[in-house]
Amino acid sequence: MPQPSQPIRPIRVTVWGENVHEHRDESVRAIYPDGMHTTIAEGIAEHLGDGAVVRTATLDQPEHGLTEQVLAETDVLTWWGHAAHEAVSDEVVARVRARVLAGMGLLVLHSAHFSKIFIDLMGSTCSLGWRNDADRELVWTVAPGHPITAGVPSPIDIPEQEMYSEYFDIPAPEELVFISSFTGGEVFRSGCTFRRGNGRIFYFSPGDQEYPVYHHPHVRRVLANAVGWAAPGPAIDAPTVANRPRGWFEG
Amino acid sequence: MPQPSQPIRPIRVTVWGENVHEHRDESVRAIYPDGMHTTIAEGIAEHLGDGAVVRTATLDQPEHGLTEQVLAETDVLTWWGHAAHEAVSDEVVARVRARVLAGMGLLVLHSAHFSKIFIDLMGSTCSLGWRNDADRELVWTVAPGHPITAGVPSPIDIPEQEMYSEYFDIPAPEELVFISSFTGGEVFRSGCTFRRGNGRIFYFSPGDQEYPVYHHPHVRRVLANAVGWAAPGPAIDAPTVANRPRGWFEG
Amino acid sequence: MPQPSQPIRPIRVTVWGENVHEHRDESVRAIYPDGMHTTIAEGIAEHLGDGAVVRTATLDQPEHGLTEQVLAETDVLTWWGHAAHEAVSDEVVARVRARVLAGMGLLVLHSAHFSKIFIDLMGSTCSLGWRNDADRELVWTVAPGHPITAGVPSPIDIPEQEMYSEYFDIPAPEELVFISSFTGGEVFRSGCTFRRGNGRIFYFSPGDQEYPVYHHPHVRRVLANAVGWAAPGPAIDAPTVANRPRGWFEG
Amino acid sequence: MPQPSQPIRPIRVTVWGENVHEHRDESVRAIYPDGMHTTIAEGIAEHLGDGAVVRTATLDQPEHGLTEQVLAETDVLTWWGHAAHEAVSDEVVARVRARVLAGMGLLVLHSAHFSKIFIDLMGSTCSLGWRNDADRELVWTVAPGHPITAGVPSPIDIPEQEMYSEYFDIPAPEELVFISSFTGGEVFRSGCTFRRGNGRIFYFSPGDQEYPVYHHPHVRRVLANAVGWAAPGPAIDAPTVANRPRGWFEG
Repeated sequence: MPQPSQPIRPIRVTVWGENVHEHRDESVRAIYPDGMHTTIAEGIAEHLGDGAVVRTATLDQPEHGLTEQVLAETDVLTWWGHAAHEAVSDEVVARVRARVLAGMGLLVLHSAHFSKIFIDLMGSTCSLGWRNDADRELVWTVAPGHPITAGVPSPIDIPEQEMYSEYFDIPAPEELVFISSFTGGEVFRSGCTFRRGNGRIFYFSPGDQEYPVYHHPHVRRVLANAVGWAAPGPAIDAPTVANRPRGWFEG
Repeated sequence: MPQPSQPIRPIRVTVWGENVHEHRDESVRAIYPDGMHTTIAEGIAEHLGDGAVVRTATLDQPEHGLTEQVLAETDVLTWWGHAAHEAVSDEVVARVRARVLAGMGLLVLHSAHFSKIFIDLMGSTCSLGWRNDADRELVWTVAPGHPITAGVPSPIDIPEQEMYSEYFDIPAPEELVFISSFTGGEVFRSGCTFRRGNGRIFYFSPGDQEYPVYHHPHVRRVLANAVGWAAPGPAIDAPTVANRPRGWFEG
Repeated sequence: MPQPSQPIRPIRVTVWGENVHEHRDESVRAIYPDGMHTTIAEGIAEHLGDGAVVRTATLDQPEHGLTEQVLAETDVLTWWGHAAHEAVSDEVVARVRARVLAGMGLLVLHSAHFSKIFIDLMGSTCSLGWRNDADRELVWTVAPGHPITAGVPSPIDIPEQEMYSEYFDIPAPEELVFISSFTGGEVFRSGCTFRRGNGRIFYFSPGDQEYPVYHHPHVRRVLANAVGWAAPGPAIDAPTVANRPRGWFEG
Repeated sequence: MPQPSQPIRPIRVTVWGENVHEHRDESVRAIYPDGMHTTIAEGIAEHLGDGAVVRTATLDQPEHGLTEQVLAETDVLTWWGHAAHEAVSDEVVARVRARVLAGMGLLVLHSAHFSKIFIDLMGSTCSLGWRNDADRELVWTVAPGHPITAGVPSPIDIPEQEMYSEYFDIPAPEELVFISSFTGGEVFRSGCTFRRGNGRIFYFSPGDQEYPVYHHPHVRRVLANAVGWAAPGPAIDAPTVANRPRGWFEG
C-alpha cells in the first residue's frame, strides 16, 4: 500500500543458517544441496529483486558470521537453527538482541523457536508439541490485508511437514497472522508478530529440514513479505533511559 | 519502509466535514474561514503531494456528498462531526460502514467519537469526559516506529485544545499509538487503531472547532501519515460467508 | 483463583434460545426434545450448582422473553440463534445491547455469530466459511490458565459438528482462548473474548443444532466457566459522557 | 466476581525488597522505618486478611531470601529494587523466572522496571524517562471492571512521586489497566499486565523510595487486588516440549 515516504536503498538481509544437518544428514543435503540458508536467501531475493541485498552467514564461521560489522549492515536477519542452539555463543546472542532492540528486523524460522535469541526476546519457554511424521500442513490466514499475507492463498498447502502443535508457550502475539492445521488434527499459531525495543519480529513455523518447505513458492513469498514488513525505518537506535527536567520538551 | 509491491496510483482521499459550526459560530469561521474540511484537506495534500488526490464532502450536500459513486472512488475517508451527528442519514452511515468493511480506510477525528459511524463500528458507547477550557494538550507517542508517528516529535505540543479524558469507552485498541495529557492532569488514549472487515480505522482526538488545531504542522503530519497507513491494497471487498465442500481449497 | 472479594448471591443466568429448529426439524427434536435452551441451561446449572440461578427465554415469548425486567435481573445472557435472526425485534436487540454496555455478560453461541446483537457489538460482518458434513471438531486451548478453560482437556474432542472456518471476520479478540480444527483441515478461532462498555462477551462456536454438542460434558463445562468469567461485579452501569471542570476529582 | 471453583487455602505472598536505601538514606528510613518491604506486606495483608499469608525476603539474606523452598511455597512474589539490581545473583533470577513460567504470579514495582527478572521476562530494554522532583501523579483507570481496579477511584491522586514517562520500552501490554499523568505533563503506562509461561505479571509504577507512596490507601488496595489477580490455580507447572504420536489425545 502507499506510504508517505520510502527509503531509497534496498533492504539489507542476512540469512543465518545453523548449517549442521546439511553436513550431517544425507536426507537434508538431498533437499538443500547448498544449505538451507542458500535456499532461503534465494527465495527472498527472488521476490524482492532490486529491493533487497541478501547475504548468508552460518554457525561455523568466525563469530558465526555475525560480527558487529555484519549486523551494523543488516536491516533484517533471518534465523534458522535446530541441532546446535547451545553452540551459539552468548556474546553473539547478546549482540543480535541489542541490534533487534535498536530496530533490526528478525525472522525466526521453525525450530528456531528454541533458539537462545528467541527465548531471550520472548521471556517464555517457547515450548510446543511436535511429531515428525510427514503431516500435511495447511496454513490459514487470519489477518487478511496484513502485508505478510500479500499474494499467498489461504490455506497455503504444504504436502509434508513436521507437525508443531499447541500449546505453544509464547507471549500473546501482537498480531496473529497465520494458524496451521495438520493431518493429525493439531493446530498451531504458525505466523506471529512481536515488537521488542524498536525491532519487529516475525515467527513463522513452516520449514523443517527433512522436507522441501523452503522450495515452496508460497512459503518463499511469505518470507519475502515478512522481510519487507520487518525492515526498519532510516533511524535505528535502542530506546534509552533519560533524566527529564520539567519542561524538557519545550522549545 | 520498503514494501514488496506498491500500487502506482495516488491515494484517493475524501475529507468529510459536518460544516455546521463554520456557518453558525463566528469564532470558528475566524479560524477556519473555508471550513474545517478545507483545512484538513490542505494538511493532507501538503504532505502527500502527488501521492494523494484529496477532495471534500459536507453534510449539506445531496447524500451528504457521499454517494455510492464518491465512496467507490474513495480509498480513505476522514470524518469530522460534532453538532449534527443525528442529521446524518442512516442510509449514508450504512453505506460508509459497508465500504469500510470492504477495505476503505477511515480516520475518525475528535468529536466524531460520537458519530453514528464510529459507534456502529466500535459497538461501545464511545463516551468520554470533556472540558472546553483551553487546556494545553501534550500528545505522547507510545508506539515509536509506527508509520503514523513518522516525523512528529513526542510530545506534540498543542497550546490550546478541548480536554478529552478517560474513561474513553472503546474496545481495547489493536494498537495504542498516542496518549495525551492536559493542563488539568487528565489523560486520554488519543491515537488508536482498529480493523473492521478489511478496513483500517484510526481515531485521533486532537481537533476541536474552537482552536486552530488543524493548522498545527505536527497534527497535519499525523493526518497525512494516517491516510497512508489506512489506504487499502488494490483488492477491496468485504469478507463474505461461504459454504465450503470438503477439499474445496485443493487444486 | 482467589479473589479479594466475592459477591454473595448466585449469578443470575438467562439462556436465550431461538427455539425454531426444535419445532420444525424432527432431527433436532430428537437430540433436544426440550429445546436446545433447556439443555444449555441444564449444562450450566449442573456445574455452577448453588452458584447460579438459571432460567430460559425464547423467541416466541412476548418481547422474546427479554423484557426490561428480565434483563434487569440477568447477570449473564447466553444467545443461540440461527434460522430467525431477522425475526428478533430491533427494540429487543437495542435493549440487550444497552444492558451489555452496562455490564451484563454475554455468551454468543455457534450460529449466533450472525445474530443482530453480535454484529452490533462487533461492528464487522462476522462472516465465516462453513460445511454441514459431520466433521470431527478438535478444540485446542491456546490460553491455559484462563478461567474459561478450567477443567477441560486440550483438545476437546467433538465427534461430529458443523465445520466453521476462517476467515472469521471479527475484530481481533482481546483474548484468543480456543482454536478448533476440523476433519477437512480447516481451522477456526472458536473461543474469543471481547469487552464492550462494561460488559464481557465470549463467543464460543461449538454447538450446531444437528449434533448433540450441548450434551458434551466438556462443552458444558466451558459454558459454565464462561458464565463465571462474564459475570459482572456488583456495580453495573454503562459508561457515560461527563463534563469535567478542572480539578473535578479533588476532594 | 463469582468463579466456578475456588481454592480453599490462602494465597502465599512473598514481598521481596532490595532494602538498600532504607539502610543508606535517612530520608527513606524516615518514611519506611521497618523497610519498604514491611510496609508493602502490611498493605497487602490489610486488604486480603485471612485470604493471604504474607512474608518478606530481602537482598541481604542468604540466596536473597528466595531459596527453592521459599519459592515453592510462594503463590505471588512482589519485587521492589532500585540501587542494587546488579547485586542480585543470576542464579536466583533464573530460579524466579522458572517459577514464574510455572505459574507463580509476579508484581513488579516501580524502579524494578530495570530489575534483571523484569528485563528477562519482557525481552526489551524496559527503559523510560524520569525526574525526581515531587511531581503529583494521577493514576487513571483505563480498564474499568478489571479486578485490579476494584475499589479505587479514577484517578488515584498521589501528591508527590518520582516522574516516570514514555517512551516506556515494554512489549505491548496484554491489558493496559492504568495510565498516569504528572505535574510536568508527562504520561506513563503505569499499570500493565503480561503473561509468561503460566505466570501472570503485573507492572505497577507508583512507589518511589523518597515518597510515602506505599502508605497511600489506594495504592495498597491496588497491590492487594493485583495479588488476587496474579494468584495461580492449584496446578502449577511450566509448559514443556512434547513429542506427540498421531492420535495421542484419543482415549
